[in-house]
Amino acid sequence: MKVLLIFLCYIFSTASSPIQDYLYHRQQLITESSNAAVGSDINFTENELMANEIVMQYKYMEMEDGFRNPDRFIAGNSFFEAKDLIEKSCVYKILQLLPKGGNLHAHGRGAVSSEYIYRNLTYRDNLYVRTSDLHIFDFKFFKSDPGSPWMLVSKLRLISDEFDIKLKKKLTIVRTQSEMENDTINSIWERFEKAFGIIKPLLTYKPVFEDYYYQCLLEQYEDNNKYIELRIGLETLYDLDQRQYSAYEKIQILQDISQKFRKDHPDAWGMRLILCVNRNAGTEEMNNTLKIVQQLMVEYPGFVIGFDLIGQEDTGEPLLSHIPTLLKAKENNMKFFFHAGETKWYGEPSDLNLFDAVLLNSTRIGHAYALLKHPKLLHLVKERAIALEINPISNQVLGLVKDLRNHPSSYFIANNFPVVIASDDPGIWDGKALSYDWYYTFMALAIAWKKKIKQKC
Amino acid sequence: MKVLLIFLCYIFSTASSPIQDYLYHRQQLITESSNAAVGSDINFTENELMANEIVMQYKYMEMEDGFRNPDRFIAGNSFFEAKDLIEKSCVYKILQLLPKGGNLHAHGRGAVSSEYIYRNLTYRDNLYVRTSDLHIFDFKFFKSDPGSPWMLVSKLRLISDEFDIKLKKKLTIVRTQSEMENDTINSIWERFEKAFGIIKPLLTYKPVFEDYYYQCLLEQYEDNNKYIELRIGLETLYDLDQRQYSAYEKIQILQDISQKFRKDHPDAWGMRLILCVNRNAGTEEMNNTLKIVQQLMVEYPGFVIGFDLIGQEDTGEPLLSHIPTLLKAKENNMKFFFHAGETKWYGEPSDLNLFDAVLLNSTRIGHAYALLKHPKLLHLVKERAIALEINPISNQVLGLVKDLRNHPSSYFIANNFPVVIASDDPGIWDGKALSYDWYYTFMALAIAWKKKIKQKC
Repeated sequence: MKVLLIFLCYIFSTASSPIQDYLYHRQQLITESSNAAVGSDINFTENELMANEIVMQYKYMEMEDGFRNPDRFIAGNSFFEAKDLIEKSCVYKILQLLPKGGNLHAHGRGAVSSEYIYRNLTYRDNLYVRTSDLHIFDFKFFKSDPGSPWMLVSKLRLISDEFDIKLKKKLTIVRTQSEMENDTINSIWERFEKAFGIIKPLLTYKPVFEDYYYQCLLEQYEDNNKYIELRIGLETLYDLDQRQYSAYEKIQILQDISQKFRKDHPDAWGMRLILCVNRNAGTEEMNNTLKIVQQLMVEYPGFVIGFDLIGQEDTGEPLLSHIPTLLKAKENNMKFFFHAGETKWYGEPSDLNLFDAVLLNSTRIGHAYALLKHPKLLHLVKERAIALEINPISNQVLGLVKDLRNHPSSYFIANNFPVVIASDDPGIWDGKALSYDWYYTFMALAIAWKKKIKQKC
Repeated sequence: MKVLLIFLCYIFSTASSPIQDYLYHRQQLITESSNAAVGSDINFTENELMANEIVMQYKYMEMEDGFRNPDRFIAGNSFFEAKDLIEKSCVYKILQLLPKGGNLHAHGRGAVSSEYIYRNLTYRDNLYVRTSDLHIFDFKFFKSDPGSPWMLVSKLRLISDEFDIKLKKKLTIVRTQSEMENDTINSIWERFEKAFGIIKPLLTYKPVFEDYYYQCLLEQYEDNNKYIELRIGLETLYDLDQRQYSAYEKIQILQDISQKFRKDHPDAWGMRLILCVNRNAGTEEMNNTLKIVQQLMVEYPGFVIGFDLIGQEDTGEPLLSHIPTLLKAKENNMKFFFHAGETKWYGEPSDLNLFDAVLLNSTRIGHAYALLKHPKLLHLVKERAIALEINPISNQVLGLVKDLRNHPSSYFIANNFPVVIASDDPGIWDGKALSYDWYYTFMALAIAWKKKIKQKC
C-alpha cells in the first residue's frame, strides 16, 4: 500500500516523463513475463472475468496477509500442519467448487481417504486380523473363524482402545513437527510402504474392493473432479468362498464400477487404468506383466491405457535395468506413463530415469521433480508436449521439499509446460481427492498478480 | 554398481542391436544435456584432466555413499549441522586448495570469521561495553574509563563467564535443530540484524577497522581466493582521541589496506568496494549517498565500483520506492549491483525487485533466488550476461531453502547462466571465506556425472 501511494504520488505530483516511461516499461515487462505462463492464452467470457476477479481478490488477501506475517502463510507450511487451516480458507472453498477436469496421477491404494478406510472398511463383518512378519496389521475376511492367530476385529475392539489407536496412527504417515525432525526420505518411505501394507489385503476382498473404488470416484466427484486415472497392480481378488478373481476379472470389475458410477452420476467421466508392477520386479515378472497389460489394452480399449513402474526411485531399480523388456514393449506400441525423477539427486540413477522416460516415449511423466536440472530434456518435454504429472503435497510429505514455494513446478507453470495437477496418494497423508493439491498449486506455485484461474488440464 | 553390471551384461551377452542403439542414444542425450552447463566448453590440459579425474573420484565416492544412505549425505544437511563433517571431507579439502578467482558478494561486517571477532577484536585494550536500547552489547573504545553505564570488557570477563557465553551465542545465528523448529524468515532476520548490531560499533574504531579488513583479505587468501568485492556502508570511524574519519577517509583507509595486503602478498588482487545504504533510507539520505558514491567512484576509479541497497527485501522498501532517485543515478552512469529476488515469494514486491534490477541495468544481481519464476527475465539475464551472485549457505541459513539440492541455481548452472559463487556473510553463521559455499555448490547444485571442475568466475 505504501508503495502504491509513493507510486501514485510520483506520477501525479512530478509528472516526470522518465518515471512514467519507466513504470510503463516495467508493467510491460511484467506482463510479457507472466504471459508465458500456463493459462495466459485463454480468453475469458464476461462471467468468467467476474469470477476470476473474485477468486483473485481472495488470493491477494491471503497472500498479502502471509507476506506481512510469514508464519501465517498457510501454503508455506507442511500439509500436516496446514490441513485444518486450508479447509477454512475461502480460496480452498472456491477451488473445491471449481471443475478440476481430471486427476491423472493417483495410485489405487492411496486414492481414498483414510477416514473411509478406517470407518467403513475396518468395521465390516467377517474381518479378521493377525500380525505377520511383514505387517503390524494383516487383515483378511473369513466366512467363519479360522482360529489362531487370526482374531475377529470387532471382538478386538471390545477388549481395548489400543487396536484402534495404533491402526489410525499406522494407516497414514501423518506426524507432528517434532516427530518429523529425524525423518529421512528413506524412513518416510518405509512408513509409507507400511501404510500400503495395511491397506493392500483389505482391498483384495472383492466386496470391499468394489465399494472402495466406487468411493474413490465419489470422493473425486464430490470434490468436483469427474475423472481419474488410477495406477493399479495385477493382484488377484478373493471372496468369502475363497474364490480367486484373476487380473482380467479384476479389470472387468473396475470397468463395471466405472460404468455404474457414470450411470448414477451422468455428468461423471469415470476412471481409466494404468497398470503397474514394482520397479524391483525380476525380468520374468516384468515380461509377464507387460504381456498381460498388452492383452488387457486390446480387451479393454480406452479403459486400460498403459503401463508404469512403482516403488521408491532412489532405492529401487532404475528404468535402465529393464531396458530390454521395455524396449520390446515399446516396439509393440505399449503406452508408458513412467514415474521419473521423483528425487532431489542430480545425476544419480533415479534422476537419470528422466532420460529413459523421454527416450521410451513416455506419454506423460510422473513427478519429473528433477527435470529442471536437464536443459535438453526440458526442451524435448516441451517440444513433444509430454505432460508432467505434478503432485505437490506428495513431494512435500515424502520429503523432497519443505516449502512448496521452492517446488520446481513454478518454473514449469511459468513457462507454459504441459502440466497436470494430481494427488498421488492423498489417503496416506490424511488428504482427500484433489482440491488440497490445487490449493498449494494456486497459492504456492503460481504467480500472485492477476492471472487467470481457468487452467488446461 | 548393480546397474552397471546388468548394463554390461546386456551389451556383451545379447549383443542386441536395438539395446546397443538405445544405450548409445541415451549416452548422447545425457552428454548433450550436460554440455549446456557452466564450464562444459572449457578445454583441459593433460594435467588438468588428471586433476579433474581425482576430484571427481572423491565426489562420486561421497555422492554414492549419500545416495545409499541419505542421512549421511553431508551437502543435504544444514550448514549448522554439516560444518564439522564438511571439514573432514576430501572434496572440501581439495576445494580449499583450488584457486577460486573471486568472492563477488560479501558484506564488510559479515565477511570475517566470528572466531576472529571474538578472540581478537573483543580482547582489545580500551574496549568498553554497555547495554543500549537497541543492542545487548553496545561496544565502544575509550582512552580512559568514561564511567557508568560503560564497563571495561576485560574487567567484566573477570567477574563471570556469563558475558562470554552470551556474546559468543549472539555473535552468530548458529542454532541447534530444535531451536530452529519455530524459526520464520523474519525471526531469523531479526537475529541476523542483532549480530550485525554487535559487530558494527566494534568496526567503527579505526585500529580495529584496519585490522579487521586486513584479516578479511587474509582469510580469503588463506582459502585460495585472491579477490573480494565488499559491500560497505558510509558510516564514519573514530579513534581514541575521538577524531572522526569521514566516508572519504574511510575509503582511503580501505584502499591503503588493500594495497598493503597486495604488497605483503604479491599474488593477491585485494579488494574493491560496492557502497551501500539501507533500503529503508529516506529520499534525502538516498540522494546524498548516491552523490557521495558518484564522487568516490571518480576519486577512487577501479576501487569504488558501484552501489547497492541492503536489508531484508521481504520486509523492506522495494527498489520501486526509490525509482526517481535510482533513475537519476542511472542517467549519471551509476553502476548498480542490486540485491534482488532474495525471497520465496512470487509476485510480491521483493520478487518484483528482479524486474527493477534488470530495468535499471544492474551490472550483476545479488541472490536472484526468485529469478527462475520469470521467463522473460531469465532470457534477458542470459542475453545481457548479467552475472548472478549465488550465495548457497546464506540462502539456507536465512530460511529460503532447507536442502540445497532444491536451490534454483542448479538450473542456472545447468543452463550456463553467468553465475558467481559468493559467501554473503559467513562470519554471521560461523563460516569462513569461500570454500564452504563452493563445497555445497559442487556437491548439491552441480551435476554428479563427469564434469569439469574448472569454472568461470
